[in-house]
Amino acid sequence: MEETFVPLRGIKNDLKGRLLCYKQDWIGGLRAGIRILAPTTYIFFASAIPVISFGEQLERNTDGTLTAVQTLASTSLCGVIHSIFGGQPLLILGVAEPTVLMYTFMFNFAKDRKDLGQKLFLAWTGWVCVWTALLLFLLAILGACSLINRFTRVAGELFGLLIAMLFMQQAIRGAVEEFGIPQRENANETALSQSWRFGNGMFALVLSFGLLLTALRSRKARSWRYGAGWLRGFIADYGVPLMVLVWTGVSYIPVNDVPRGIPRRLVSPNPWSAGAYSNWTVIKDMMNVPILYIIGAFIPATMIAVLYYFDHSVASQLSQQKEFNLKKPSSYHYDLLLLGFLVILCGLIGIPPSNGVIPQSPMHTKSLATLKHQLLRNKLSSTAKESIKKNANLSQLYQSMKEAYNEMQTPLVFQTPPALGLRELKDSTIQQASTSGYMDAPVDESVFDVDKDIDDLLPMEVKEQRLSNLLQSLLSGACVAAMPLLKKIPTSVLWGYFAFMAIESLPGNQFWERILLLFTAPSRRYKVLEEYHATFVETVPFKTIAIFTLFQTVYLLLCFGLTWIPIAGVLFPLLIMLLVPVRQYALPKFFKGAHLTDLDAAEYEEAPAITYNLSFEDQGTHGRSPNIDSAEVLDEIITRSRGEIRHAHSPKITSSTLSPHEEMRSVYSPRLSQMASPRLTEVRTERSTRSSGKGFEIKQTPSPRPSPLGKSSHSSSSSTT
Amino acid sequence: MEETFVPLRGIKNDLKGRLLCYKQDWIGGLRAGIRILAPTTYIFFASAIPVISFGEQLERNTDGTLTAVQTLASTSLCGVIHSIFGGQPLLILGVAEPTVLMYTFMFNFAKDRKDLGQKLFLAWTGWVCVWTALLLFLLAILGACSLINRFTRVAGELFGLLIAMLFMQQAIRGAVEEFGIPQRENANETALSQSWRFGNGMFALVLSFGLLLTALRSRKARSWRYGAGWLRGFIADYGVPLMVLVWTGVSYIPVNDVPRGIPRRLVSPNPWSAGAYSNWTVIKDMMNVPILYIIGAFIPATMIAVLYYFDHSVASQLSQQKEFNLKKPSSYHYDLLLLGFLVILCGLIGIPPSNGVIPQSPMHTKSLATLKHQLLRNKLSSTAKESIKKNANLSQLYQSMKEAYNEMQTPLVFQTPPALGLRELKDSTIQQASTSGYMDAPVDESVFDVDKDIDDLLPMEVKEQRLSNLLQSLLSGACVAAMPLLKKIPTSVLWGYFAFMAIESLPGNQFWERILLLFTAPSRRYKVLEEYHATFVETVPFKTIAIFTLFQTVYLLLCFGLTWIPIAGVLFPLLIMLLVPVRQYALPKFFKGAHLTDLDAAEYEEAPAITYNLSFEDQGTHGRSPNIDSAEVLDEIITRSRGEIRHAHSPKITSSTLSPHEEMRSVYSPRLSQMASPRLTEVRTERSTRSSGKGFEIKQTPSPRPSPLGKSSHSSSSSTT
Repeated sequence: MEETFVPLRGIKNDLKGRLLCYKQDWIGGLRAGIRILAPTTYIFFASAIPVISFGEQLERNTDGTLTAVQTLASTSLCGVIHSIFGGQPLLILGVAEPTVLMYTFMFNFAKDRKDLGQKLFLAWTGWVCVWTALLLFLLAILGACSLINRFTRVAGELFGLLIAMLFMQQAIRGAVEEFGIPQRENANETALSQSWRFGNGMFALVLSFGLLLTALRSRKARSWRYGAGWLRGFIADYGVPLMVLVWTGVSYIPVNDVPRGIPRRLVSPNPWSAGAYSNWTVIKDMMNVPILYIIGAFIPATMIAVLYYFDHSVASQLSQQKEFNLKKPSSYHYDLLLLGFLVILCGLIGIPPSNGVIPQSPMHTKSLATLKHQLLRNKLSSTAKESIKKNANLSQLYQSMKEAYNEMQTPLVFQTPPALGLRELKDSTIQQASTSGYMDAPVDESVFDVDKDIDDLLPMEVKEQRLSNLLQSLLSGACVAAMPLLKKIPTSVLWGYFAFMAIESLPGNQFWERILLLFTAPSRRYKVLEEYHATFVETVPFKTIAIFTLFQTVYLLLCFGLTWIPIAGVLFPLLIMLLVPVRQYALPKFFKGAHLTDLDAAEYEEAPAITYNLSFEDQGTHGRSPNIDSAEVLDEIITRSRGEIRHAHSPKITSSTLSPHEEMRSVYSPRLSQMASPRLTEVRTERSTRSSGKGFEIKQTPSPRPSPLGKSSHSSSSSTT
Repeated sequence: MEETFVPLRGIKNDLKGRLLCYKQDWIGGLRAGIRILAPTTYIFFASAIPVISFGEQLERNTDGTLTAVQTLASTSLCGVIHSIFGGQPLLILGVAEPTVLMYTFMFNFAKDRKDLGQKLFLAWTGWVCVWTALLLFLLAILGACSLINRFTRVAGELFGLLIAMLFMQQAIRGAVEEFGIPQRENANETALSQSWRFGNGMFALVLSFGLLLTALRSRKARSWRYGAGWLRGFIADYGVPLMVLVWTGVSYIPVNDVPRGIPRRLVSPNPWSAGAYSNWTVIKDMMNVPILYIIGAFIPATMIAVLYYFDHSVASQLSQQKEFNLKKPSSYHYDLLLLGFLVILCGLIGIPPSNGVIPQSPMHTKSLATLKHQLLRNKLSSTAKESIKKNANLSQLYQSMKEAYNEMQTPLVFQTPPALGLRELKDSTIQQASTSGYMDAPVDESVFDVDKDIDDLLPMEVKEQRLSNLLQSLLSGACVAAMPLLKKIPTSVLWGYFAFMAIESLPGNQFWERILLLFTAPSRRYKVLEEYHATFVETVPFKTIAIFTLFQTVYLLLCFGLTWIPIAGVLFPLLIMLLVPVRQYALPKFFKGAHLTDLDAAEYEEAPAITYNLSFEDQGTHGRSPNIDSAEVLDEIITRSRGEIRHAHSPKITSSTLSPHEEMRSVYSPRLSQMASPRLTEVRTERSTRSSGKGFEIKQTPSPRPSPLGKSSHSSSSSTT
């Protein structure tokens, strides 16, 4: 993205690009038919459970002023509007943890003011939202989104780890509170006697750890050894909602032996019960807020604006990673503008606003890539089979497949990137075939195995449309109506879910991986090299890694400490944004440029004004090459990019890890550079298998005999380990 | 072992062999000095915790007649006597689960008889023990132990899995009982009110699962990535007692909030409190048992005799596996005779008898191998360093090391096997060196790296002595005195420990692995081939494996069902022994010989009378080659052999997996055949790394640049994965 700050230019460009494909966004979605429901439900569950959890967290933090009803309503409302009027429909909106934290700070401030109090709290947040929206408008109009390339890993990953710490804190606090007497409850109830509270607390521990451990396990279901493939895939995709269901079921097992209220469950009024409407009419109270507080609302508003600017843009960016080969343009500025309107809307009806969420947004793109792959595969496979029946030779086969592929292409009016994938691979395969003399012979299984080779040919493509986003938002809205059902979820299950979210966010965060590296026994560091690892592990001296990580850890603890300070805590986003100039101006004085580049690559250090396309080209060289067929690998893409800014690798790194030949290819062919990438960033050192003990070698020799389990033992992808 | 049934010949041979090295057994132990305490404490903890658990199980099953005091006393008493007067001092004795089960059956029988009842129960078991002992004498004198080669995997592994099921049953039953009102308790206590019982039950779940999960984790500490090597080793070796300690500590956290009795803890009288002596004077009551019951005692006695004959011999066999390169002779017959005396002794003082236990016995040998390795290594290392200082050439170096090695050898009077290891490796290394022209040059680091190459030279040897067994038995005795401390262990921790024992016993059990194979998705079966796997996976058709496993499963469920039948359950050992003739005469009619050989090799099918040495030679070819330095590998030896009979591989298999050249070596050099073994039974199929998705290959290429983390990345043994 160009760093130009001509007012409105960013918004204009975004609108121009998106309007051209707006109609196709809907037609494409509808054409996908019933299959669109798979990504829809997948994202719905991934989005709804945290939103419900944040609702429960807000309920406690705001003494019941805001509950899961409001968080769900906001998620649904903003989602519907964004999916219809938004720029980038891959972006998923929802109420997120930073919002909860800011609302908690604001509630703690407001409740103790005589002239504000709990009564006028929502009206005051209405003003905060108005200010926030104005700031967001300003940022959008001035083109601030083109700055996001300046956010390096160091800030993004620190933010990610801070959120993980806050999740874990909530999980622990929630579990401990299960042993105590909740506020606003009648302490004379049977369920609150000392003995039952002990039982309730212990039961909560069982449910929390049960959910945490089974959810963590289910995420890895795809690489399980037992059960059919579809079942493993289903568990991996829907394991977490499934586990919420299972542990909610478990919580009903002792129902005959325990008094009502054990275990404690989600607290929320039904949206249709009396009194639940209060917040929908907040706008009426807004003029009752004292003028000083209206002006003072500007302070939290700047913080929220900074947060949303950061979070919304990064979520959008992650859902449009180069690996996904998106065809339709981005829309950072216009989406930020729309977010401003959404914030006002939410403020006026007294619900917490939503913004772009991680990891749901990249998960959304991923699930749509799987969808597109299935559609493409079916079409090409039938074409190829037909050609083979007609005794076509290889070039005829590719010709007919090319035609079928082009038919499937989104008919876009505006400039399209060259149809990637099919072409290059066709060329290279044909070249191979011609040297082997297969060129003119009719194609048979040995030359082209339809089932396997089509997967090799298919490029990563995403079914870019608006329908799945709209549908999942509507489902979130339906959750509000299903409140009586949701209220059956024990709170302890949600605490387990918070711990799960914290742990799930860690892999792929290089900051976290560096912390682990510090604790790794020196004799075991080779194990890090054996796995996928970042460049710095090989290029930066251990001591430098340690110092850099310690600096970041101290900074993280400062941020975490700040959130504990009652009212000043509201300033924590400032401390995170401060890292951007610190990184740009202070850190280069303490670390060698090359080391800093490997630890935390920043594009501005390489070329001050990188054009949109080139910057994405660079990104392509470090991304893991997508392999749609193996959903395990796709899982990794999502995992590794969560909470990170993926602008990490710069041309300089590329040159240090690529051979000149490979580098050439990476410049001229994004497709090929992707193919080469696993060898770049994820070098595996082949271990010398010399056993240190008894003087023999265990060699990894191929099986001396054909295996009775057949081909499968040889056709696995090494990336599934 | 020869199958001869000349009365007393077996006992005579055993005694002759062991008497020759008896004095050395003590001197060797004392010479090891303070280091002997490492294997001693290791085995003590591994032995004491299950014995305490079985005590708690007995306490419940016998309404408090027998407790942990009695099981510990029996373990200690039998252990001390065996370590002094026994034949094979590597064998560890203890009260085991089958004994608990038999005593439970007998108690349930006795308590309902009017003329027996709980009062005369122990007196009656005294008679059972007398009969059992007589039968054991008979078996020992008639040379029955030479028959153990007929026990194939099929019986041993079924027995192992049955025990695992019983453990798991006890774990679940125990945890469920935590929610109920225990027998013999005053139901009006606060701790037994409905609310506290609920809390107690939930707390018990937390403690049980806490122990189970952390104990399972700690067992794998050696391959952890974090923490110093010694710490990881310590946690792997002592993690389980450590976790018992930790969770006992956790159980005291809510002590101020809960009434006494929550959580429930180990029930046992202190051995010095009044009434606890009752069982020591059982002999006085024995004449009060009605004559009919004295005769009837013969029925459970046969079952116990069969059990002990089986269990004791197999435990002894596992502690003397060929991999350990033992120098001193075995003593099956004499040890069975001594066991008879121990059974009488225990019966007369009213405590349950002990017998040889798995996996503690092979664990004992393993820990002594580590000890011997340390001693040898220190000696040779200093010799080598001295030689290098004197600018010795390679053959001088080996000469001096050879001399030092011989000094360390046990000076045995009787025929010794040739000093293995050092010789062959010296020869081959010298040959290599002479071809490279290094022969006469002074040795330097590049030719002989003292720290590494000594490990390669050292053969597996075991510090065979009696001291560690004696000391660990005395420690078990000290536990009786520490009863007030042991009573702080919550019962729920013990239930978790039962579950741990069940799960820990599964890996390496081929029956279990075949059950898992049946549930493995066909597309994932290649993963089994990638890991260490038994021969049958490659040679036997899947359908045959499935039928064989189903047969075994049905048989297992029959055995398990039998243990549920109130009194007839006592016959379950018969059903297991029945498998021996079923395997020998019935199964060959349903399965092809070659398949049966691979699924469950039996030596008698190859050569009816195999001589002692030859049979062990065969065993050597299938064992994993020992690698003392990598304790992870040694762990595997123990794990894989637990509950199994290691006579599985026969010469026939060897010839089908060895090349003729390798077979030659295996016949003429046991040392070399060991070296070859990893390639035989544990073939790894190198996966074709062709990625199925996008047409590129991720190759396991060596790192293109030297790694900053240094050598360590190349020196790992592939067997640690």
